[in-house]
Amino acid sequence: MPDLSRLAIHTITNKPWSLAECIYAYKKIGIPALSVWRNVIEPLGAKEAGQMLRDSGLKVPALIRGGFFTSTDASVRQATLDDNRRCIDEACEIGAEMVVLVVGATPGLALAEARKQVADSIHSILPHAQAANVKLAIEPLHPMYAADRSCINRIKEARQICEQLHHSMLGIALDVYHTWWDPDLEQEIAHASRQKTLFAFHVCDWRVPTRDFLNDRTLMGKGCIPLKTIRQWVDLAGFTGPIEVEIFSDEYWAMDQTRYLEMIRDAWLTQL
Amino acid sequence: MPDLSRLAIHTITNKPWSLAECIYAYKKIGIPALSVWRNVIEPLGAKEAGQMLRDSGLKVPALIRGGFFTSTDASVRQATLDDNRRCIDEACEIGAEMVVLVVGATPGLALAEARKQVADSIHSILPHAQAANVKLAIEPLHPMYAADRSCINRIKEARQICEQLHHSMLGIALDVYHTWWDPDLEQEIAHASRQKTLFAFHVCDWRVPTRDFLNDRTLMGKGCIPLKTIRQWVDLAGFTGPIEVEIFSDEYWAMDQTRYLEMIRDAWLTQL
Repeated sequence: MPDLSRLAIHTITNKPWSLAECIYAYKKIGIPALSVWRNVIEPLGAKEAGQMLRDSGLKVPALIRGGFFTSTDASVRQATLDDNRRCIDEACEIGAEMVVLVVGATPGLALAEARKQVADSIHSILPHAQAANVKLAIEPLHPMYAADRSCINRIKEARQICEQLHHSMLGIALDVYHTWWDPDLEQEIAHASRQKTLFAFHVCDWRVPTRDFLNDRTLMGKGCIPLKTIRQWVDLAGFTGPIEVEIFSDEYWAMDQTRYLEMIRDAWLTQL
Repeated sequence: MPDLSRLAIHTITNKPWSLAECIYAYKKIGIPALSVWRNVIEPLGAKEAGQMLRDSGLKVPALIRGGFFTSTDASVRQATLDDNRRCIDEACEIGAEMVVLVVGATPGLALAEARKQVADSIHSILPHAQAANVKLAIEPLHPMYAADRSCINRIKEARQICEQLHHSMLGIALDVYHTWWDPDLEQEIAHASRQKTLFAFHVCDWRVPTRDFLNDRTLMGKGCIPLKTIRQWVDLAGFTGPIEVEIFSDEYWAMDQTRYLEMIRDAWLTQL
């Protein structure tokens, strides 16, 4: 029997499925954990989703996603903080260990200023996260999202906020799609290990050529990311958490999701 | 009269035009310089193109592009070196001050190994460049091109090769499109200034949202790049060369190029 104990799937990976369908399919194939995107709990509410998840016995590494902290409008920023507190409450309700933060970026707002807003915002919500016993994980996004999705595009800038706020509930979600190109990747993974901030490890692959800015990720082994090398760095860093599959792909979303799930399992077992 | 003395246009910016059409239109509107892409000299040959350019009186900051040094096949790498020497010869023939290098990347070849190949390749062709009195400028490309176009995605890695090879004919072409997101940009521009390696400054803007990986750059001022800030850093670095407009855009290529050229001139005058 292959060891799937560290496999987790992000529900967005099987976007056509509801939460109930994800739970059913993942359990059936022996996958022990799923990270939950907010869109699949919205139709149910967090309470009912939490009940379903507890009944399933599946583990829930993360709720995705909080963040989007940046704005040139203070009232928008305030509303975002409130939404992030609700997101933390939902994570608590569904038993998720952490909320993954996509921090935001705003055209016209300098990236350095945006990063200050992010640090201030995380500082504001950390007490709420601690009270709920939900960790916060900053996910650096690829520089191609620097305009409007994330002003944090390397692990280094995530690390700097972790160092500044220095809180045991704050860390980093490392996604190979966003970070594989970074010449400092190995060194920053080792840093995160020493600082105990490596909270999550997301995998997929970079398709060559990539045809869409958002929804053309591919299955592990079908792209150019040196997955075994990065996995080795993460292992050396002492990371023993779930290795989470997060793939946005119009191509794969269009196929039979049960068959696709088997392909994901097989790629996860052989390509990492 | 507005001062256009530091304006240069890359011929690819007006892709529908031949070299003769570019020369005619740029002169007519008072633009004193153009950087020449190899595709527009190919139909003429470098000798005839050189004659046209000398007759025009326009300056030629650069021939674009050499590079693409990386491969898993040694014979391919060798052929590429030969092509780069030809490119240097063409630059000499048309009176271009430098060849811009897009260094290449190869799926399946580790980025660190690819960078070694790049350094070795540049080392091999530098004597030829020196003999021809043509500079070589490494252009870091955005990390979204790390898979198959460039293993050098930040100024830092370009700087490291410049430091390693330490040659007066080797420097960096800074393009805002590729580097605006880099948290180290200001510091690296200052580095390049001290090391006298800031050879070129290319401008355009990052459209939000960007709809295509290659051909959706936009006109200065129509995107999110802090152009005036970066221009200020470049000025402080003592750079006094041409400020070159390089825009790949299916949208702008589809419009009347004479009208577009006026828009470029106006954006260059007001947005930098």
